[in-house]
Amino acid sequence: MTDRYASFVQSGAGRALVKRLGLPDPPRLRRHTPGDPLLPGPVLLGAAGGSRLAVQVGRMLLDAGVELRDTPASGDPDPTTGQLPKNGALVYDATGVTDSTGLRQLYDFFHPQARAVLPSGRVIVLGTPPAECGSPREATAQRALEGLTRSIGKEFGRGVTAQLVYVTRAGDAGTPTSLEATLRFLLSGRSAYVSGQVVRVGAGPAAVPADWNRPLAGQVVLVTGAARGIGAAVARVLARDGAQVVALDVPSAGDALAAVVNEIGGTAVQLDLTGPDAPTRLADHLADRHGRVDVVVHNAGITRDRTLGRMDADRWDSVLDVNLSSQERINDVLWERELIPEGGRLVAVSSIAGIAGNRGQTNYATSKAGVIGLVDSLAPALAGRGISVNAVAPGFIETRLTARVPLVIREAGRRMNSLAQGGLPVDVAETIGWLAWPASGAVSGNVVRVCGQSLLGA
Amino acid sequence: MTDRYASFVQSGAGRALVKRLGLPDPPRLRRHTPGDPLLPGPVLLGAAGGSRLAVQVGRMLLDAGVELRDTPASGDPDPTTGQLPKNGALVYDATGVTDSTGLRQLYDFFHPQARAVLPSGRVIVLGTPPAECGSPREATAQRALEGLTRSIGKEFGRGVTAQLVYVTRAGDAGTPTSLEATLRFLLSGRSAYVSGQVVRVGAGPAAVPADWNRPLAGQVVLVTGAARGIGAAVARVLARDGAQVVALDVPSAGDALAAVVNEIGGTAVQLDLTGPDAPTRLADHLADRHGRVDVVVHNAGITRDRTLGRMDADRWDSVLDVNLSSQERINDVLWERELIPEGGRLVAVSSIAGIAGNRGQTNYATSKAGVIGLVDSLAPALAGRGISVNAVAPGFIETRLTARVPLVIREAGRRMNSLAQGGLPVDVAETIGWLAWPASGAVSGNVVRVCGQSLLGA
Repeated sequence: MTDRYASFVQSGAGRALVKRLGLPDPPRLRRHTPGDPLLPGPVLLGAAGGSRLAVQVGRMLLDAGVELRDTPASGDPDPTTGQLPKNGALVYDATGVTDSTGLRQLYDFFHPQARAVLPSGRVIVLGTPPAECGSPREATAQRALEGLTRSIGKEFGRGVTAQLVYVTRAGDAGTPTSLEATLRFLLSGRSAYVSGQVVRVGAGPAAVPADWNRPLAGQVVLVTGAARGIGAAVARVLARDGAQVVALDVPSAGDALAAVVNEIGGTAVQLDLTGPDAPTRLADHLADRHGRVDVVVHNAGITRDRTLGRMDADRWDSVLDVNLSSQERINDVLWERELIPEGGRLVAVSSIAGIAGNRGQTNYATSKAGVIGLVDSLAPALAGRGISVNAVAPGFIETRLTARVPLVIREAGRRMNSLAQGGLPVDVAETIGWLAWPASGAVSGNVVRVCGQSLLGA
Repeated sequence: MTDRYASFVQSGAGRALVKRLGLPDPPRLRRHTPGDPLLPGPVLLGAAGGSRLAVQVGRMLLDAGVELRDTPASGDPDPTTGQLPKNGALVYDATGVTDSTGLRQLYDFFHPQARAVLPSGRVIVLGTPPAECGSPREATAQRALEGLTRSIGKEFGRGVTAQLVYVTRAGDAGTPTSLEATLRFLLSGRSAYVSGQVVRVGAGPAAVPADWNRPLAGQVVLVTGAARGIGAAVARVLARDGAQVVALDVPSAGDALAAVVNEIGGTAVQLDLTGPDAPTRLADHLADRHGRVDVVVHNAGITRDRTLGRMDADRWDSVLDVNLSSQERINDVLWERELIPEGGRLVAVSSIAGIAGNRGQTNYATSKAGVIGLVDSLAPALAGRGISVNAVAPGFIETRLTARVPLVIREAGRRMNSLAQGGLPVDVAETIGWLAWPASGAVSGNVVRVCGQSLLGA
């Protein structure tokens, strides 16, 4: 469950050897601890001519206690050393770019700053969703931003992540209210293992929390598969952030589940989700104890790997049922019984295998691709009620399951990403947390990979 | 420019060694020669209950001279050997799947057939675009098909490819007319290096050719960057398929361009596309000689690699201008001067780097991501005129450029895909050809990777 190579490399003795031999060099990632400042250094904020978000974003960052620089005035080289001052993040508002020649402005901003980003720093580019653009030329240029940010994610190294955030022109989006949750997540250590992503921020309603250190205060959250691994991390992180957690797992995992629940002060539900009366029993429990469920985290999942030619029908059926069909049945019953209030959140766990497919996992990949379909189809259907639907798609995460993978394949999976290491369950949990916040109402219909920008994809 | 390892492996001596050492085993791919039968064996056609395309597809395949089997009657094991008869392709109409439990029908179809596909065989699943589905459950199940087909592409091996084709419910789509071109391409050797793709077939008008061996008969086709590599292969393939080719390249490549043109009987245009008067001069040439251009293949492209911190502005500007902005300028002038007739075709060359980003290629990846934006934005804008807009995104293709890549990186790029080898320029050319056919009018807004289902992605 641990990455011994990364620990070695991050030690003094390891560093020298890694440099000499040109070995992979996984950086120590900045992760979130409550009370942390948002960033380890200033934000350099730039904007293309005619952009619409930078002023609001600057004000928001100042209010959040971030030191703000604008370029070039405060970004000039030190007259003695010739070095640029280092930044915790480079944020660029590219919404003013209306054709491909205007992309030059991003080169002008990022080129001199490429080596002036602190370790585990952040690069964030803000754009307009291409489908909302007024002309093919503008849509083309806005779509091109994706190639830039993904390349930066692969280039900058040292734990620096890069994301493109498309912010709708509709409604009050782009105001601090709707964008703030996403920017706070992406700038903070919460997003340590999220890189190379395209996030879409829409016009949904967002509620600013009284305390950004407890963004889930008062929320009733159901986490399935909560006894171990990613699910247990989700329960812990969401409880830390203020949620009342209802932790669910199968009866055979009862002891582990009880341990999690005792640690975080939540309640436990022992239930096999594939049972015919499971949705009703779950709904009864939620109705009786809480009267509602604000956030549903569909995390429970299993693998039963075989190539398709060697796969018996039971492996197919059980994986599809646990990972996909049971989610649908539960959603339907919770919905029918009106247990998900206005402003509710559904967050499902997909997988890179659901995006790219995987050898020996036709069942798993089919189920996890279905989870993406669930997000795509439910998000617009529930938007009118202010309910958001999103998924995370973990890449290589260090868990009990991946610890069993043979060494060579495990090492390949661990290193084949921009951060040269596997993620931790807490990284997936933090991402789920962000999507669950009342403040994240403008984020719906997203599938966010938590994969360190894995090379693997479709 | 050649893959010596693959040649060795495909020889008698190599085969034994590869088996003993467990080395990558690149199969010899079936490629297209005019007059070839569509497939090396029968098609096993299956359908989920309530599907809407199978009958039409079956009739179309019979008309195309394909031997058709249906399951299980003609797909039973040989009573003596217990072996199933081998198929050239497995085609499954999944449009009848309306919820996740219905996906079991695909398991039932594919599981017994997984080892009964001939080398370089084909797996094609037909579905309904999730956005057109009547319920979230149906959309979820249809989206799940992607995980299945991509996994099959990674599992089956021996040059077998797997694709998902989403066929619109609108208009006359799904009839042989609109779907036939795509099925013929995907079943044939023309699609040798295309795997793991999702193709969308819409309702655009499609013209059935008099002779499927000359699907571009009478079409005037412009190919930019035609002197060498992929562009030269495009010129050859499109001429072979009946097109009158106007081959364009920079004056410094004049000799190579002349050689291509002499070989195929086309005409040459020596022009630097970045010159201020280039679009006008090109339009003049097309107007004077042909009065129109039915197909524009935007292939010309350059790389000027450096990490962003070390990249001078000229590298940025030249790559963006050649690969993206000049395409936009040419499109605009051709459009204004009404040189692209109803039923015209634009086909652009993107890249896997435009999808996934690439270290050292911020400029190239930005330009190639922009090409995707160009397809996404122009396709709906031109649909009313029956003009289709698509792109191909090549992965590792064996060219002069890739031959210069250092050995280890080259080998990684070559083998990290489901076919364990690099593609050939002709593979990209055949894919462009399909998108250029008058018969492919129902295919617009697609970005089709020609990458052997590379592991690399976003």
